[in-house]
Amino acid sequence: MTRRKKSHHSHGTPNRPRLWGKHAVAAALDNPDRKILRAWATREAAEFMKFPKDLALTMADVADLGRLVPSDAPHQGVVIEVEPLDDIWLDGVLAGGADRAVLLVLDQVTDPHNVGAILRSAAAFGAIGIVTQDRHSPPESGVVAKAASGALERVPWARVVNLARALEEIGEAGFWRIGLAGEAETDLREALGSPRVALVLGAEGAGLRPNTREHCDALARLPIGDEIESLNVSNAAAVALYAASIA
Amino acid sequence: MTRRKKSHHSHGTPNRPRLWGKHAVAAALDNPDRKILRAWATREAAEFMKFPKDLALTMADVADLGRLVPSDAPHQGVVIEVEPLDDIWLDGVLAGGADRAVLLVLDQVTDPHNVGAILRSAAAFGAIGIVTQDRHSPPESGVVAKAASGALERVPWARVVNLARALEEIGEAGFWRIGLAGEAETDLREALGSPRVALVLGAEGAGLRPNTREHCDALARLPIGDEIESLNVSNAAAVALYAASIA
Repeated sequence: MTRRKKSHHSHGTPNRPRLWGKHAVAAALDNPDRKILRAWATREAAEFMKFPKDLALTMADVADLGRLVPSDAPHQGVVIEVEPLDDIWLDGVLAGGADRAVLLVLDQVTDPHNVGAILRSAAAFGAIGIVTQDRHSPPESGVVAKAASGALERVPWARVVNLARALEEIGEAGFWRIGLAGEAETDLREALGSPRVALVLGAEGAGLRPNTREHCDALARLPIGDEIESLNVSNAAAVALYAASIA
Repeated sequence: MTRRKKSHHSHGTPNRPRLWGKHAVAAALDNPDRKILRAWATREAAEFMKFPKDLALTMADVADLGRLVPSDAPHQGVVIEVEPLDDIWLDGVLAGGADRAVLLVLDQVTDPHNVGAILRSAAAFGAIGIVTQDRHSPPESGVVAKAASGALERVPWARVVNLARALEEIGEAGFWRIGLAGEAETDLREALGSPRVALVLGAEGAGLRPNTREHCDALARLPIGDEIESLNVSNAAAVALYAASIA
């Protein structure tokens, strides 16, 4: 059997991720904190995208672009290679919150589609940021950026070394920390009410780790039937953000 | 360049889809209406899965299973080949609803991950079913089933030829038809209140088609900021189902 050599560098690296799709790329171009190293686009997409004049831009056809990204990635005619955003510190995120603020904390949510969709919902509902544990979260990538539909550039994302320690800091900053847990007896609506809320979500299946639960002020459940044990984590996050927004 | 011949039959067909993942397969085994043609499993997964004794079961290792499904599909040690479920008629779904009932109608939502996640949320929030237009919706597949996490077997899914005609029938059955539209002025909460509600969602970007809108009783928006133009459609569906469940 003959195999093409598979290069892990061909679709970007964690240090130089490639982003694609019109929304994700337009948001990156709009973000003054985003360093863009180079770009490829179809002639049509290039007219649409308003690239800065000093950017290294290569005109390409759809098939060329397809080779720059994972197979089936919906690049919509445009791909850029970027530097990851600078690290954001948790205390900076917490200081940014007004009297009313919602923060999302993700415990071992590793799927990049889910994290991207959660960023998108966080932007839509005006959350002040998301917090993940560095070892158990995906790096910035084209998949995250595409699912985030621009929100990767806009929603502060703090990666912390120790989630339990971060939850202590979040509590000290006046956030009521609500852990979403299917087996909790309290309905999420009953747990909401504090002006500053941190919604803590765990991975599907495993749920919140014991040490994460112990650092929550309350555990609460979404009002779903027993037939399905849980929602997709990005759907659970969207529902929780909505519930917090109307509380 | 040497290429491996790519067979479209190697991962199942619309007439004989392959399903994978423990939740999706366990739900298929539990569904008396699901005809299972054959199965492959690791020894460990086979012990866990409780296959019926008369099923054609092939023991396989993880790598073998990987070749039965699309690359990177999280098969969790088990793959089955099945017949699609029998068609479900819309009037059957409508007749099944109690005095209080929520129905989801999808207008050109084609992504199988999204449709699967929507089925999962529909089950979680007790919706009586989903309705899609046959030409503009994905067939049953492993991707739909995995994202649905068992709900593909449990949530009635009516595929109709003409969505506008279906919306007429839904209206005649006493459902208040609410189309989700970002530019609507009414908040979804204000539009809710009828005991029988049909939530109508369009594709991301395109939104609801004009003829779909015209067959809604009300258009309403989710209370999200202007920064992001929309939620991912499965997240929007989850939020709308939640809002309907607490209305």
